Amino acid sequence: MRLTLVAGTTHTAAIDGLSAAGASPDLRWHTPSADAELVRYGRLVRSPVLPLSPTGCPTPALVTRAVVELLDLDVVVCDGGLAKPTGAPTVDFGAKPGHDIRTPDPVRTAPGVFAAARDVGARLREDHLVVGETVPGGTTTALAVLRALGEPYPVSSSLPDNPLTRKEEVVEAAFDSSEISPGQAAHRPELAVRFVGDPVLAVVAGLCVGALESETRVTLAGGTQLIAAAALVRHAGCLDRMELATTSYLAESVDLGPAAEGLDLDLTVTDPGFTDDRLSQYATVGKEGAAMGGALALADRAGDLGAVEPRTLSILDALSAAQDSDVPHRENERDDETGYDAGEDGRGP
Amino acid sequence: MRLTLVAGTTHTAAIDGLSAAGASPDLRWHTPSADAELVRYGRLVRSPVLPLSPTGCPTPALVTRAVVELLDLDVVVCDGGLAKPTGAPTVDFGAKPGHDIRTPDPVRTAPGVFAAARDVGARLREDHLVVGETVPGGTTTALAVLRALGEPYPVSSSLPDNPLTRKEEVVEAAFDSSEISPGQAAHRPELAVRFVGDPVLAVVAGLCVGALESETRVTLAGGTQLIAAAALVRHAGCLDRMELATTSYLAESVDLGPAAEGLDLDLTVTDPGFTDDRLSQYATVGKEGAAMGGALALADRAGDLGAVEPRTLSILDALSAAQDSDVPHRENERDDETGYDAGEDGRGP
Repeated sequence: MRLTLVAGTTHTAAIDGLSAAGASPDLRWHTPSADAELVRYGRLVRSPVLPLSPTGCPTPALVTRAVVELLDLDVVVCDGGLAKPTGAPTVDFGAKPGHDIRTPDPVRTAPGVFAAARDVGARLREDHLVVGETVPGGTTTALAVLRALGEPYPVSSSLPDNPLTRKEEVVEAAFDSSEISPGQAAHRPELAVRFVGDPVLAVVAGLCVGALESETRVTLAGGTQLIAAAALVRHAGCLDRMELATTSYLAESVDLGPAAEGLDLDLTVTDPGFTDDRLSQYATVGKEGAAMGGALALADRAGDLGAVEPRTLSILDALSAAQDSDVPHRENERDDETGYDAGEDGRGP
Repeated sequence: MRLTLVAGTTHTAAIDGLSAAGASPDLRWHTPSADAELVRYGRLVRSPVLPLSPTGCPTPALVTRAVVELLDLDVVVCDGGLAKPTGAPTVDFGAKPGHDIRTPDPVRTAPGVFAAARDVGARLREDHLVVGETVPGGTTTALAVLRALGEPYPVSSSLPDNPLTRKEEVVEAAFDSSEISPGQAAHRPELAVRFVGDPVLAVVAGLCVGALESETRVTLAGGTQLIAAAALVRHAGCLDRMELATTSYLAESVDLGPAAEGLDLDLTVTDPGFTDDRLSQYATVGKEGAAMGGALALADRAGDLGAVEPRTLSILDALSAAQDSDVPHRENERDDETGYDAGEDGRGP
């Protein structure tokens, strides 16, 4: 059985107060690259530190990794616009880091990325695509995409208090700067992603459309960002039922019912039953991410849900020990010498 | 257990008469991308056709895949300068397709790629690195690298008759155009790769140096290209013993003894015992590649060598059936829209 994780970035995450996916704004650029390494290998390879929220809550990628180990899942990571090197192998669809959605054309590669991901989604011929995301700032771009499509559903937050007013201001500025208005990208999903979205959504939606076209069962492993992906799939004309599998923490923070009904999604909500202080923080911080909810659903179906907490804690302990004893980390920034670039137009990160 | 495959290209392969790794010069650009998909998934995803030699011999990647399935190996593909899209996830070290070694600076990214791969090789902290390659034209660049280092060892060929005179002419032209002369890159492995090598060698050598530095056992899974990689490792000052695991077909076509002795390599030669006409062709065409020899050594140690031929044939049959019934293939060339590029300086492929 396979788990697919789409990892990428958007400069929208650099806006103050939108994301808890990283201990600081600078470290946030590393979060998707580090999550990819954690889910794929159970350890950090090129990433400098374990992603933490500003209050010290560790990334939900650890929970996903625990399930990967328990169920021996095959992990495929897709590059949805990574900004920092990762030691994880990634499928390349040509995605670049997304620009701030308050700029006119933040995801110029979206149409090509969507088409390439759709092709791979169809050609993998899996029995079951289980796909999650890791992209700091992703709920803000998800909100903008939902509005561009004319969909009314709410989004959640990795922060304890959802900064909804701030998100709505950013989304308004995104529409002010772009060629489309709310509702105007209905049935044109690639325009919604290109003008107000992020590259991760282009990859996720493309993979799902391709998978459904080849009669593959689809589970969207995550929360409201995956609802935005589902809306893109519907607006691409693909109407087969899909499953949305998320955590109880996420489901308690936002009403998923209307989106599930409106977008024809079977909703699976899994409570990991965490009792340890380090993991029960997910109830307020993080809540979901890096395919955590989908992984928990798979563990539950396999009768292994009770084993997830001890396994997650043992991974966390091993990582803490490794980080303490590690040799100094050579910095591997994307630069001229290695052929990495600093983002389109040199606008960073 | 993990198997690492480094897949890449060099424009040196476009020189007539050097390589059998593809049915035609145009299709040869797809061979490493297709091999990566075959070893990782057992099927083609974005690659248009099964790689064949001009006489119809299928890629040795099928044999490697059979062993991956039999032993449930974890496959990691590294991008050593791929020219065409692959559906396989790849680790990115910033490698680009290598230029023809008769140009002045064919692998400009070599120093950065070597450093990045060395870092990952050290940080993966595996028990055992088993690493192979797929790069058409790679024995010619391997010959040039050996000469740049001042090493006298011979190279083999994927063609039935090794075009040694042709290769030596190309190598001579490579030195004529470059800043180094034979022997002048001794103890400067990154210069040998940069001025007369290919990007795959930079990745393989970097991974091995990093692995040995972190006390990981290393098996070089292949023939004389891996001997060139071993020479690079030695010239980087890394003297721990390594294993070279290759096929009997390769070992019968070239004397590996002096290189094994001179470079301190434990030589493992495995005869797959193929009897079916489709696979016994490897005795004269292909001979080795895509980690075939290393995979066979692992199968032999696990007591599964006898199962490799039937499993390889069943994969080949399934691929032939899929190719016959497949939907038309959308071409996914690297272009502006998807962010793929046509190679540095627009020189293709």
